[in-house]
Amino acid sequence: MGVVVGDQVFPLDSSVYPDMTSFLSAGSEALAEAEKIDRGESQTHTKHRLSDVTLLPPVTRPGKIIAVGLNYRDHAIETKQDIPTVPIIFAKFPSSINGPDAPVVLPKDDPQGDYEAELAVVIGRKAKGVSEAEALNCVAGYMPLNDVSARRWQFADKQWVRGKSCDTFCPTGPWLTTRDAVPDPHALSIRMRVNGNVVQDSNTSNLIFRIPALVAFISAAITLEPGDIIATGTPNGVGVFRKPPVFLKSGDLMEVEIEGLGVLRNRVVESA
Amino acid sequence: MGVVVGDQVFPLDSSVYPDMTSFLSAGSEALAEAEKIDRGESQTHTKHRLSDVTLLPPVTRPGKIIAVGLNYRDHAIETKQDIPTVPIIFAKFPSSINGPDAPVVLPKDDPQGDYEAELAVVIGRKAKGVSEAEALNCVAGYMPLNDVSARRWQFADKQWVRGKSCDTFCPTGPWLTTRDAVPDPHALSIRMRVNGNVVQDSNTSNLIFRIPALVAFISAAITLEPGDIIATGTPNGVGVFRKPPVFLKSGDLMEVEIEGLGVLRNRVVESA
Repeated sequence: MGVVVGDQVFPLDSSVYPDMTSFLSAGSEALAEAEKIDRGESQTHTKHRLSDVTLLPPVTRPGKIIAVGLNYRDHAIETKQDIPTVPIIFAKFPSSINGPDAPVVLPKDDPQGDYEAELAVVIGRKAKGVSEAEALNCVAGYMPLNDVSARRWQFADKQWVRGKSCDTFCPTGPWLTTRDAVPDPHALSIRMRVNGNVVQDSNTSNLIFRIPALVAFISAAITLEPGDIIATGTPNGVGVFRKPPVFLKSGDLMEVEIEGLGVLRNRVVESA
Repeated sequence: MGVVVGDQVFPLDSSVYPDMTSFLSAGSEALAEAEKIDRGESQTHTKHRLSDVTLLPPVTRPGKIIAVGLNYRDHAIETKQDIPTVPIIFAKFPSSINGPDAPVVLPKDDPQGDYEAELAVVIGRKAKGVSEAEALNCVAGYMPLNDVSARRWQFADKQWVRGKSCDTFCPTGPWLTTRDAVPDPHALSIRMRVNGNVVQDSNTSNLIFRIPALVAFISAAITLEPGDIIATGTPNGVGVFRKPPVFLKSGDLMEVEIEGLGVLRNRVVESA
């Protein structure tokens, strides 16, 4: 765990905060410590150049990854589905978690690998039955997420979880941007580039169900916990619905860029 | 953590094994320690009467719960679905985990609560790309599981995870029976009783995809880890497909009994 300030990283005490979940579970005191470092009001024992460190997934072991389907109008239209009237929730298994600059490995038996740029919400405190008005208080912050999908499995299975949960299929990062640093999470440009070409280009203002509605909806029956991730859905432009369809191939460089949250880069490799 | 022998429980050192996942991750040495106690060759500091202790879920924090749909022929037929040609995988979020004798809380907004008796497999070691021949080596043991379901949400959402993942919707236990104590996991009678009436009555010999096939299928793309749970599917007789349909109501007592693995009892309560 460390605090990213410009092109430097200030490490936090790993005996106190071995990972993001322990940091978030520690509550406002931990956050205040990080903020002091961010403002230059507190020193750490060492510091590193950002380019010298290997970044891991911001949350290395989420308790759950809750994804939302068809949550941008133009994406629902390109899939020829009805615009949802309640959020469509699906799961990515936590073992699919991946970090920035790490390979995404396509499985041998599904040739239809695809990308999905998404705004991810990281939960900061336990939440059950919260109202929309209270919902943002449960949010620790935001990060880019790539909801990588094996389309043949996803559509053949009908239940999406297998095609969405192959190992390495949930890149997140490059870091968590805390909620206070994002004045409006529903006004951020969101883009996917593959090999430098913009293939998805939208804005989180186009979300059908916004973050407070999602948190309230999910937490009505399911307890949200520190480190849980909500992937809020992808805009139009995914590969499988292009004419003709375009799928990922070995060597492709995927980049999710969300305004103010950084760029999440992952290269595609084929299974050995 | 403790070893159940007859009507007694012999506690293991909680500083060494705070939970099942740490016990399983410790490997064969930990298992040998428990087996010695089971055979009366080793003493523990204390012992308790089984009736004096409150049993928690055998795995309190599984990394993932992987469920299998329509994996008994007669159940696939009662749902009017085709017999699956590959396993249908879906997810229950780990926050739904529940233990024996603990209440199952129906959500306010779905009146169609239902039961599903299932044989659960607990993974004992990390497994990726294992063959059917090697698969059982990755299995720590077995336990009854009740795949409680909110049918209105399950079917309206099409993706099953929300209706399957309400808090308390994954009762497991009463304990984990280790693999060595189960000569053939595909020859066990499995029953669900509601208020003493037998409503599901089958045998794990009727599984369409057996445990080695499931482990090989899942681990082809998804790493299995110690403490992960595979719910192998339910036989026919669930409430929603009865004529007329029967749903759970407050006060109902559900009992999953699997031959040699014990009885998992949970009472239904309505959300406050």
